[in-house]
Amino acid sequence: MFFDRIKTLGIAQVTYLIADAGEAALVDPCRDVDKYLTLLRENELTLRYVVETHRQEDFEMGGAALRRLTGAEIVAGSHELFDHADARLRDRETLQLGSLRLRALHTPGHTPESMCYAVFLADSADRAWGVFTGDALFMGDTGRTDLTDPGRTAENAGLLYDSLHNKVFPLGDQAQIFPAHGAGSACGGNVADRDYSTIGIERAANAAAVMTRDAFVSHKAHERIARPPYFTLMEEVNLKAGRPLDERPVSWLTPTVFQERRREGVVIDARAPEAFAGGHLPGSYSIWLTGLGRYGGWISYEAPIGLIVDGPAELIEARLALARIGHDNIMGALAKGFEAWRDAGLPIETSATIVPDQLQAANNQYTILDVREINEFEDEGHIPGAQHIFVGDLESRLGELGLRKDMPLVVTCSVGHRASLGVSILQRNGYSNVFNLLGGMTAWRKLGLALDRDGS
Amino acid sequence: MFFDRIKTLGIAQVTYLIADAGEAALVDPCRDVDKYLTLLRENELTLRYVVETHRQEDFEMGGAALRRLTGAEIVAGSHELFDHADARLRDRETLQLGSLRLRALHTPGHTPESMCYAVFLADSADRAWGVFTGDALFMGDTGRTDLTDPGRTAENAGLLYDSLHNKVFPLGDQAQIFPAHGAGSACGGNVADRDYSTIGIERAANAAAVMTRDAFVSHKAHERIARPPYFTLMEEVNLKAGRPLDERPVSWLTPTVFQERRREGVVIDARAPEAFAGGHLPGSYSIWLTGLGRYGGWISYEAPIGLIVDGPAELIEARLALARIGHDNIMGALAKGFEAWRDAGLPIETSATIVPDQLQAANNQYTILDVREINEFEDEGHIPGAQHIFVGDLESRLGELGLRKDMPLVVTCSVGHRASLGVSILQRNGYSNVFNLLGGMTAWRKLGLALDRDGS
Amino acid sequence: MFFDRIKTLGIAQVTYLIADAGEAALVDPCRDVDKYLTLLRENELTLRYVVETHRQEDFEMGGAALRRLTGAEIVAGSHELFDHADARLRDRETLQLGSLRLRALHTPGHTPESMCYAVFLADSADRAWGVFTGDALFMGDTGRTDLTDPGRTAENAGLLYDSLHNKVFPLGDQAQIFPAHGAGSACGGNVADRDYSTIGIERAANAAAVMTRDAFVSHKAHERIARPPYFTLMEEVNLKAGRPLDERPVSWLTPTVFQERRREGVVIDARAPEAFAGGHLPGSYSIWLTGLGRYGGWISYEAPIGLIVDGPAELIEARLALARIGHDNIMGALAKGFEAWRDAGLPIETSATIVPDQLQAANNQYTILDVREINEFEDEGHIPGAQHIFVGDLESRLGELGLRKDMPLVVTCSVGHRASLGVSILQRNGYSNVFNLLGGMTAWRKLGLALDRDGS
Amino acid sequence: MFFDRIKTLGIAQVTYLIADAGEAALVDPCRDVDKYLTLLRENELTLRYVVETHRQEDFEMGGAALRRLTGAEIVAGSHELFDHADARLRDRETLQLGSLRLRALHTPGHTPESMCYAVFLADSADRAWGVFTGDALFMGDTGRTDLTDPGRTAENAGLLYDSLHNKVFPLGDQAQIFPAHGAGSACGGNVADRDYSTIGIERAANAAAVMTRDAFVSHKAHERIARPPYFTLMEEVNLKAGRPLDERPVSWLTPTVFQERRREGVVIDARAPEAFAGGHLPGSYSIWLTGLGRYGGWISYEAPIGLIVDGPAELIEARLALARIGHDNIMGALAKGFEAWRDAGLPIETSATIVPDQLQAANNQYTILDVREINEFEDEGHIPGAQHIFVGDLESRLGELGLRKDMPLVVTCSVGHRASLGVSILQRNGYSNVFNLLGGMTAWRKLGLALDRDGS
Repeated sequence: MFFDRIKTLGIAQVTYLIADAGEAALVDPCRDVDKYLTLLRENELTLRYVVETHRQEDFEMGGAALRRLTGAEIVAGSHELFDHADARLRDRETLQLGSLRLRALHTPGHTPESMCYAVFLADSADRAWGVFTGDALFMGDTGRTDLTDPGRTAENAGLLYDSLHNKVFPLGDQAQIFPAHGAGSACGGNVADRDYSTIGIERAANAAAVMTRDAFVSHKAHERIARPPYFTLMEEVNLKAGRPLDERPVSWLTPTVFQERRREGVVIDARAPEAFAGGHLPGSYSIWLTGLGRYGGWISYEAPIGLIVDGPAELIEARLALARIGHDNIMGALAKGFEAWRDAGLPIETSATIVPDQLQAANNQYTILDVREINEFEDEGHIPGAQHIFVGDLESRLGELGLRKDMPLVVTCSVGHRASLGVSILQRNGYSNVFNLLGGMTAWRKLGLALDRDGS
Repeated sequence: MFFDRIKTLGIAQVTYLIADAGEAALVDPCRDVDKYLTLLRENELTLRYVVETHRQEDFEMGGAALRRLTGAEIVAGSHELFDHADARLRDRETLQLGSLRLRALHTPGHTPESMCYAVFLADSADRAWGVFTGDALFMGDTGRTDLTDPGRTAENAGLLYDSLHNKVFPLGDQAQIFPAHGAGSACGGNVADRDYSTIGIERAANAAAVMTRDAFVSHKAHERIARPPYFTLMEEVNLKAGRPLDERPVSWLTPTVFQERRREGVVIDARAPEAFAGGHLPGSYSIWLTGLGRYGGWISYEAPIGLIVDGPAELIEARLALARIGHDNIMGALAKGFEAWRDAGLPIETSATIVPDQLQAANNQYTILDVREINEFEDEGHIPGAQHIFVGDLESRLGELGLRKDMPLVVTCSVGHRASLGVSILQRNGYSNVFNLLGGMTAWRKLGLALDRDGS
Repeated sequence: MFFDRIKTLGIAQVTYLIADAGEAALVDPCRDVDKYLTLLRENELTLRYVVETHRQEDFEMGGAALRRLTGAEIVAGSHELFDHADARLRDRETLQLGSLRLRALHTPGHTPESMCYAVFLADSADRAWGVFTGDALFMGDTGRTDLTDPGRTAENAGLLYDSLHNKVFPLGDQAQIFPAHGAGSACGGNVADRDYSTIGIERAANAAAVMTRDAFVSHKAHERIARPPYFTLMEEVNLKAGRPLDERPVSWLTPTVFQERRREGVVIDARAPEAFAGGHLPGSYSIWLTGLGRYGGWISYEAPIGLIVDGPAELIEARLALARIGHDNIMGALAKGFEAWRDAGLPIETSATIVPDQLQAANNQYTILDVREINEFEDEGHIPGAQHIFVGDLESRLGELGLRKDMPLVVTCSVGHRASLGVSILQRNGYSNVFNLLGGMTAWRKLGLALDRDGS
Repeated sequence: MFFDRIKTLGIAQVTYLIADAGEAALVDPCRDVDKYLTLLRENELTLRYVVETHRQEDFEMGGAALRRLTGAEIVAGSHELFDHADARLRDRETLQLGSLRLRALHTPGHTPESMCYAVFLADSADRAWGVFTGDALFMGDTGRTDLTDPGRTAENAGLLYDSLHNKVFPLGDQAQIFPAHGAGSACGGNVADRDYSTIGIERAANAAAVMTRDAFVSHKAHERIARPPYFTLMEEVNLKAGRPLDERPVSWLTPTVFQERRREGVVIDARAPEAFAGGHLPGSYSIWLTGLGRYGGWISYEAPIGLIVDGPAELIEARLALARIGHDNIMGALAKGFEAWRDAGLPIETSATIVPDQLQAANNQYTILDVREINEFEDEGHIPGAQHIFVGDLESRLGELGLRKDMPLVVTCSVGHRASLGVSILQRNGYSNVFNLLGGMTAWRKLGLALDRDGS
């Protein structure tokens, strides 16, 4: 028996490879399938099945690509959203893989078609060894229930509660859980930072287990997690199990060529926020490398993207992070990075910064924009007087904020990544007096400075 | 939280890396510590502790090397065999690692000092998340109980049963188990081929759980697994947590230099048995690459070892496999392998082979030596008339077998690896008419040829 | 300035990457372009040009694939065989690459369209820094002149002599030479084992420089190097700069599936000759890994190929070696290699071997087939009485040899690789008493045994 | 024959590996010998010799380490500075390596003991194939002649001219040159950006070839290249062929531990200047990664060094860069980098920046410090009114500059790397109003702003 988890940072996604007697199945693979093919090759395994727990919203799936490259069959549930699958399992139906048996469980709630797959070994055939839980059950958390219809978030939460209590938890304490996402995912509100768990552990530590049904429904109804616009595209392409990756590599462009081509597109600077603040191309977005797979989803899907990265390894990572959320239109990357741009004497812009003490001292001189999610703003506290606008909405709703272009603006988030994106959006749009609060709310809190909480 | 398992093939060993808040512990590391240092470096972790479950017999431990290189403390139990440890935990005593808590459990049986360590997370602090079981509990099996005193195998089996039933199983079905060995280990008779399990799974599938105490004791008493002579050296060096690895690389030697130096040493040919049969250096031992960490333990620790390998990657693997069992005296490796030897026109020897059908047809013309473990010979069946002699004992007990040097001898094992070592030993000692049974007892059985079972 | 050579073993090919100011050109790339794309990516270079010295016969070119993936232009000479090129340079015409200047030189002889490209640096603009010589000039050798028309070998040799003496040598002693092939190529008879040289060195050590025109023409006319049948396919596909590689990975097949599928195809065993001799699948061809790119060209292009290799790294190498010579129809590889086959108890065959002393003693009992090239057989000497048949012709001309299926046959070559292929061909065709001479003519000569030379 | 160049960035050093018939020599290896051992292992070569061209001043040599690890002999000239060598060749004496012959040439000038080694192949035994030129002859340049005694720079230049004209150039145009340094080295003033050259090319493009002896001597006498203080340590340890590398890895420290330990040491921030400007630890030095091997030589050798790097790969690079120039006292690296520091809410400092246009407009409000080498300042032009102080001298001569701590200071260099180090030195020493000129003199010049030249 062979078992491995393949984590994809940025979208906090986990794909599982399970195999026996030389035959393998991949559960919920992403679109950048090379990593799976390498693992199969290194372990001399044949891919028989791609198993889908549900139609993913936050990344483009790899099933279609894998089917084409390896001849594997796509296995899923019987819901109509799985129309593209080669084999469709009804609730309780099983699939054999070497000496292993996978039992399909229909577990709606996160989405209506959601499936879990319990795994049974030959020597303990009546006790589930583990269960692929998709977005139904995470480590310490559950999948969001607002995606298919925000108006039925509570209703779906009830469905999810029932799926877990009637189908998943009864598998027994001994069953390991294998969710599709880990800490940091956009598909859950508060996933715990552990990669390994069992039903027994979750029964002690997971809200879905310890709460009553009513409490759980009300808890989920209160969750307000942003829904990036690209989810709509994902829902569409994933009806066909995703599209194969463009096989053409991203070109490195010399500064002169980059300068020329950027006119027709947008520039994303994937360096760290500090580096962006120290100097960047005018008009570029600042999205740090591991944030691309999430915040890249708010960038236009029309214009070609030019990339500023630290080097070749980062280019690969950036390109795949964008491809996973459906961004295929990459115009190129700046060869030798920002340094080459600077050496070429081309136009440079910097961002201003401010430390918490300075801001506290001169508070009322600045307009403060807090660009975190609304739950963070309300539940974790914010600087008194700060205005909330989620970073994903900033560019589209700038007009509503009524800010003058020369006003002194401070942008903050938890530590400074999303604030850097916020700063870059403001600079792109002509705001000339913008500051990133260094250390963000983390530093603010550590320094014991004043906080407002929602309703307090 | 960070958790990873580092498997060492050949000795089927597993070391665990567990970390939280930047601080890490390694459980039962081997002597070739580079792989751990790489993992620590890549994940930007500080090594705080090396945790030992027991004094290993089958490989040289890495604690001393890691302590010297990183300043980590060695943590173990309070038994006197743990004298070298920096921190010694009594039964039930705990160790904090970031937000994780490790609880020491004294679980004698495999050896008197054996410890298990249960792990508790902050959000489910009263339920063990997992347990490092050392050689007390394997996947589907338990550690052998004959090592410290073969005369007290049964008594130790009883101790082990009690340790498991009183201390380990009560941790609960939800606890994952993390044993020190996997399938193929010399420390267990029949470890299951799965890398992941929980107490709940083992309670259904493990002999130690499903048997009564008496049945278990009698089951363990019947286990007869070979005890390689190097275990004695391991017991000695592991009293000090092992010795650091020699930092000098193995030299590649040209055929001429290899030819010269081999006179003072022995040659181990680590290629596949087929390649050895097709041509090899006269007098060389045949031990396939992943068998080195086990059968290399029967080769003399006095003479320097010359290596025949397929290439650079295999040289590293061969060298570390030997170092893990305490073989440090390597004279060099043949540059460009056997091919260079052949191209140089130096003396070559081949081995004869025979297929099952031929042997069946001409059975009584050959003396058959079955070199498997005695349990395999008796329980799985053997060719009628075959003589049993375990491959590890073959060279030292050749005289007792009463074979003439020109007798037609057939050597067999399960598929042909150990038989190739057997053939090489016989050729080294002047037996000139030796055959390897291709496919071994596996092919014999698949062809439905006659089998004897012990007592049948 | 950036300069690197990318060697492809097996076909002894060298591709060059030259770049300046961020823009790169690749000279004579192979079809497996990933290695070039990696190098470009790692060094943050844009590929501007693929430069072709001539239409390759011995491997499939990578120009078309690179053009499609990167947008690079194909640059070549003005001969009609370069019809597919985007830019066609006349003799003496130049191409600018950053501060570098490449000057095209039409140098017919090896083939009529052959070009060389001299490189000039800015600070020494009147002295060639180096020259890409394609197959016109090798280290210590020149390209064969029999390919386009064996009847005009001498005439083409004269053309080649003139090209070198009139266009290449006059570039000056200081110019480095960058040929398309190194030692072991099928495109030259006797390429020297050095990767670096200059015109000045070649003027002292190269036959083309030290001989008179007449002597050179007669020397080339005497060269008789085999012409693999696949050259014809290469000539055809290279008219379009080759075909892109199939992006589907080769599947690992379990022994049962492999056994089934092999019925429709052929099996190539790419392990070392010793391993093949020790055991192999009945009916398989033995072609060692680095021999695939040459001797694989004599295997049928109709039947799908099943591969036996040592592991994942070898699978990649084998697959690319075959793809480079146009073999795309791969049915799969045996998962876990020959060992899995043996463990499955499936049918195995072995090859017999014989050492020189035995053969010498019993010479007249055996029919000896020497499967080297005719020049080796005649010029380097052979065993008295040995019959010559080049390994590439063995299968197609077996009938002409008049051998009985049960005759004792010894196959030999220089050290045993080609002999192993010869043995496998004979076994495939029902010859049951076939021996590989261990160490081949190399060992024979080292032992001082009797040799015949042509005409002696 | 095997030949490869191993480049070490930062010190722009090149080590050569040359081998034949399985035996290898390394010419001028650095102290971090793992890269050489890997290359030897991968190519299955035995290291026979470490060949030294001279006692290096700018990096610690690897001969002693290699001798200890592999048993290789150190080969050098007969000068007393080579006392530690195992074999000492007189002028014109030769060394055999397989079929290759190396001829020693005593070529004083850069230093009195300097040797070159010409290489001859068997098939062109009277023409040098190449020559290892150490620091005597670079691509387009020659070694500095001021190191052993600044008072005898001109005299040594004459010696060097004679060595080249009498011993090196006569080897012939065809000989390839293999110097010990490439573009960017502290050992030459103006090395050309090409990795490959021949005597013939250099005879056209190298000052030492095209100038008269007098002109060359005066040219070298005018060269004023900084001499880092660590050269003295290198001269001492290299008398024994360097010291082995400390085998302990650098520890990752959590922010709290790092904060504590930094009190006893200094912090070097090896991120890009932009990232440093955007936020850094108060009191840290800014030295970009590839600058460490040069500018790290001005940092104190007493205090332990704490490192801020971008990740694990950069940690290895930073650590080796420092080790190569003798810095072994590393206290640790900040785990998860600057981001972890910021997230921990620990104190942060930023640097101010200014663009050329702003500076031009407000020129007389700022004191400008130009921290380039004096030759760059004088020959390439500087901002009118700028004060010159080489970055290496800045900290030790701060007092002499007569600057007030609150004065507005602009630091500049060619593009901003050295200026960032200058800014960090000023901030460390309490100057609170310091600006880095973005783009440096490169941008200034591209914008066509006013320049002063020395004497103009």
